[in-house]
Amino acid sequence: MAGLRELLMVGPGGLRLAEVDPRSTPGLPEQRVVGDDPKQWSKTQVTAISEELNAYQERLYASAKEGATNRRVLLVLQSMDCGGKDGAVRNVTQRMSPAGMKAVSFGPPDQEERRHDFLWRVRRALPPVGHVGIFNRSHYEDVLIARVHDLVGEDVWSQRYDLINDFEAEQAAEGLTLVKVMLHISKDEQKKRLLARLDDQSKHWKYDPGDLDDRARWDDYQRAYEDAINRCNTAAAPWYVVPADRKWYRNWAVATLLRDAFAAINPQYPEPKFDVTAERAKLLAADG
Amino acid sequence: MAGLRELLMVGPGGLRLAEVDPRSTPGLPEQRVVGDDPKQWSKTQVTAISEELNAYQERLYASAKEGATNRRVLLVLQSMDCGGKDGAVRNVTQRMSPAGMKAVSFGPPDQEERRHDFLWRVRRALPPVGHVGIFNRSHYEDVLIARVHDLVGEDVWSQRYDLINDFEAEQAAEGLTLVKVMLHISKDEQKKRLLARLDDQSKHWKYDPGDLDDRARWDDYQRAYEDAINRCNTAAAPWYVVPADRKWYRNWAVATLLRDAFAAINPQYPEPKFDVTAERAKLLAADG
Repeated sequence: MAGLRELLMVGPGGLRLAEVDPRSTPGLPEQRVVGDDPKQWSKTQVTAISEELNAYQERLYASAKEGATNRRVLLVLQSMDCGGKDGAVRNVTQRMSPAGMKAVSFGPPDQEERRHDFLWRVRRALPPVGHVGIFNRSHYEDVLIARVHDLVGEDVWSQRYDLINDFEAEQAAEGLTLVKVMLHISKDEQKKRLLARLDDQSKHWKYDPGDLDDRARWDDYQRAYEDAINRCNTAAAPWYVVPADRKWYRNWAVATLLRDAFAAINPQYPEPKFDVTAERAKLLAADG
Repeated sequence: MAGLRELLMVGPGGLRLAEVDPRSTPGLPEQRVVGDDPKQWSKTQVTAISEELNAYQERLYASAKEGATNRRVLLVLQSMDCGGKDGAVRNVTQRMSPAGMKAVSFGPPDQEERRHDFLWRVRRALPPVGHVGIFNRSHYEDVLIARVHDLVGEDVWSQRYDLINDFEAEQAAEGLTLVKVMLHISKDEQKKRLLARLDDQSKHWKYDPGDLDDRARWDDYQRAYEDAINRCNTAAAPWYVVPADRKWYRNWAVATLLRDAFAAINPQYPEPKFDVTAERAKLLAADG
């Protein structure tokens, strides 16, 4: 179970994105039948892992109900446009309950958010005890787009790495398990997906002409991602880089990373605070 | 498509819960192969309907992104304990995206909530434009448990029906489609499910000794439900009563009611605000 985490976790030596092949598929289980359609294999696997996630989620939720835990889980997804964040979320969570889950997409900060420090809206969006949070983009945008497009000066963004590390360490100490995942796609794959968006009327709403401006700054973004990942890759909150040109691998890898994070927590149902036998007798005695 | 809504919608003549058989299965499609396992049939159907819901949800979300709509959808689920609210939510939403969804469970009001009017926390939990909200319990608890257990005087709860009607009419005028569903189980079925909770260690956390106090007031609750449903059954926000002793029917019925509500809205993808051909050319010209 720990295999994939170790394979995809950024090591202490740091990361060079150019050395990660976005089409690679590290860590696939050996018992996978060779010759199987990998898409079908992944679909079945992801559904099964999502069932496991649902079981873990229920136990986490239950343990928090009795006040026995301060545990919370947060999946942070970052990627270039078309990296597959929405698709990964929908597939990974398919068997989970929306009741104990909070999914938040971070766009450009609104007027009120801009009047606060960059972590203000992030703190407000954190999952409460017993819940699972999902961040589609995150506070990392404040050292990515903010840096690449000079939304703030270098004197501002360059201080944010330490602020992020302090914030994440503080949250980890307060029971938050962070699973930070970069979905790593190639420039070619992004082009294919942008074209697909333009060629499908039902996908036009996902397209923004600004996407091409970001694409023109591809190398700057890759450098900004490398710095964000290398400078904020801590023991309390490590980064995982998932090759994401193949959607079937991406879904399987994200589901597995999240499942393994839950397995490490291994939340347990709480002991009942009532006398089971007495309640049973009372229920049976009360009426026919 | 409109068939089930008409069958389950409470009519202008009002509702007598005793006349609705919790084990009945009204409105099943005729083309269902007789002899099929109904549970398997329902499972397949609910997955397919959830895919439809996902497509509608995406279109609703997309239309709101361009500011072209004020539409929002809210599924309100009420039932006696063990009525199946959690199970219905998980199954109906299985193929939907958590990104455009907000599921809220209403428990006893906390200290801050008690310092406001009973609709305060409900207003705060409403889905924003383009989103789908799910209420597991709701403002109706304020004319159910609050009435049965005398948490407030009759002078207070008796005024709440009109307040609820005003609130829901106001929200409907502001683009909210309310799908209010009571999951109707029998007293016998509740007993079976309570016993199952007591006999399964992994379900103890769902059991509360207070459940038996509520069960002892079964008839009072049924009357309070009838009054809530009959007095708050409006054209803007009608009530549906779903027989819920059979889980497979319950899941299919709730999924179908929600799907048909979306079909009535029929949200559309917005027109692109950019020149598709020009963007395509720009993308292809920019790089190799």
